[in-house]
Amino acid sequence: MSEENRRFLLAERPTGPIDENTYDLVREEVPAIGEGEALVKVKWISIDPTNRTWIGETPTYLPPVAIGEVMRGLGLGEVIESKNENYPVGALVNGLTGWQDYTVVSDAMPLMVVPAGIDAPPSSLLGILGMTGCTAYFGMTEIGEPREGETVVVSAAAGAVGSVAGQIAKLKGARVVGIAGGPEKCAWLTDDLGFDAAVDYKADDWRAQLKAATPDGIDVDFENVGGEIMEAVFARMNKDGRIVLCGLISGYNETELPPGPRTFGNLLIQRVKLQGFIILDYYPRFGEAIRQLSEWMGQGKLRSEETVVEGFEKLPDALNMLFAGENTGKLVVKIED
Amino acid sequence: MSEENRRFLLAERPTGPIDENTYDLVREEVPAIGEGEALVKVKWISIDPTNRTWIGETPTYLPPVAIGEVMRGLGLGEVIESKNENYPVGALVNGLTGWQDYTVVSDAMPLMVVPAGIDAPPSSLLGILGMTGCTAYFGMTEIGEPREGETVVVSAAAGAVGSVAGQIAKLKGARVVGIAGGPEKCAWLTDDLGFDAAVDYKADDWRAQLKAATPDGIDVDFENVGGEIMEAVFARMNKDGRIVLCGLISGYNETELPPGPRTFGNLLIQRVKLQGFIILDYYPRFGEAIRQLSEWMGQGKLRSEETVVEGFEKLPDALNMLFAGENTGKLVVKIED
Repeated sequence: MSEENRRFLLAERPTGPIDENTYDLVREEVPAIGEGEALVKVKWISIDPTNRTWIGETPTYLPPVAIGEVMRGLGLGEVIESKNENYPVGALVNGLTGWQDYTVVSDAMPLMVVPAGIDAPPSSLLGILGMTGCTAYFGMTEIGEPREGETVVVSAAAGAVGSVAGQIAKLKGARVVGIAGGPEKCAWLTDDLGFDAAVDYKADDWRAQLKAATPDGIDVDFENVGGEIMEAVFARMNKDGRIVLCGLISGYNETELPPGPRTFGNLLIQRVKLQGFIILDYYPRFGEAIRQLSEWMGQGKLRSEETVVEGFEKLPDALNMLFAGENTGKLVVKIED
Repeated sequence: MSEENRRFLLAERPTGPIDENTYDLVREEVPAIGEGEALVKVKWISIDPTNRTWIGETPTYLPPVAIGEVMRGLGLGEVIESKNENYPVGALVNGLTGWQDYTVVSDAMPLMVVPAGIDAPPSSLLGILGMTGCTAYFGMTEIGEPREGETVVVSAAAGAVGSVAGQIAKLKGARVVGIAGGPEKCAWLTDDLGFDAAVDYKADDWRAQLKAATPDGIDVDFENVGGEIMEAVFARMNKDGRIVLCGLISGYNETELPPGPRTFGNLLIQRVKLQGFIILDYYPRFGEAIRQLSEWMGQGKLRSEETVVEGFEKLPDALNMLFAGENTGKLVVKIED
């Protein structure tokens, strides 16, 4: 166990992708705890598109991380010292740990204690049985609401949220089309996850692929990406279609507002419902999603994949990997076992 | 009464605004009716933004008007000869009469018979007590759902739908801001209709006006226009806001797809619900809306205004007036008393 607390502090707001000037890696003493506090050793850190939105200039659904503040991030850790009975030594905790080796929790700065008896690898508690899985679950079942035989398109389909969202739509009886980058990811979607078709957005003929894969149009768009592919999807929306507006990752590294979808008018003509969606609003209902997701996993109906990057220092690189689409499934950084 | 049937036939699809080549004005014999048919003399014709969408190349919610076919339009007429007891001589009828002096109705090609006892000027049956009023009513009450104290923005607020939609939001206790072109229309909104503020989109400082008029952001956008004003409105949407996507008139004369709203991402961050809306879907419920609108009018709680253009030959000019924003309230063409 490291006897210092490595921390990535925000040094400057990036314009475009993050680089070596974005963070200062500092080494501080392991914090001492006071009454009512507990010390957590962070073991895994989750890499999510929203990490990038938190370090932009504009407040989003949370205020931007301040310059000099530790980078905000979701993580999984273990309580190693405690003066708070809600956080017993040995408990696993999950939540906004930040990009650091140690964090201090208290009733005022809480993390979620993972209930004993959940038998899952730690990384899946950050993925399919964590915020990622809950995002896929609530977005698809409560906003997308696919019906038997409808066509569902999922963008960033080989990513952590998309791969689960598409599988849930399959469980609901829909025809599911995933959009992903490169033939390997596309093959993974159709061969391993059971998607009906996949569209390779890196191929020159992606428009033709999208058209061929959705001969009856599109009833549900689980949107994670934005940009010109979303624009093409909007053009193919059917009457009374639904759009789960979950992410717009293609624009997060842009310094100017990206162009809007020119096919926006089709949402009117087709009476489409679009709903912006931030998973934190569903936090009180996470238990419900996690129970259902665990049950499906136990029945072999749901598969999850992850890409693990090892080493605390790799955190910034891992975030850029995410934007370059280099991961399949959930991307996590392992700090220590 | 004219003894010929003047008809505007679609001669070519316009690129941009309609012009003198768009229609052929032909004079035909007054049609003879067969068994089960009735002859209707058209007296008033409604001018609506959707007229323009029906003569584009792209099928919308109805197929495009074919070249050589009579121009599609809503109108009000009187049955003057009948071999169908559903359409007695003297009955007023309302519906897709087309741009012509006479039309033939039957059970297969029906128009709505205006119930006896509705005491309203004929033009209001095409306006506030017709499709226009129903659009404002259902869009605002079922999608916008403004709550007491919320801020509602209505674009094309001095138009037929917008002026009614804004008044309904006032009746629901909201703060209502109308967007309209020119100081006269803006004064009409605030002084005569009771809007809380108006934004003149023709003024150089419309952005500052919009900001000043919506100090607490925007909870409901009743969108009739699209374009850069909609983009600015999207940027000011509050958490859990609603967008009634009713019209995008700024793009209807464009030959290429207009740019999408660059502020689209704010719909995600603020968890906005957007619903595309075509009033024809509510047709079976029109009676409900008309009863409520009549009641409000009778109580003096709702005002309607109209701009009347006289003369059948003026129909194409009237449609261009609509796109130039030259009307206040409902725009109708009077064919004869």
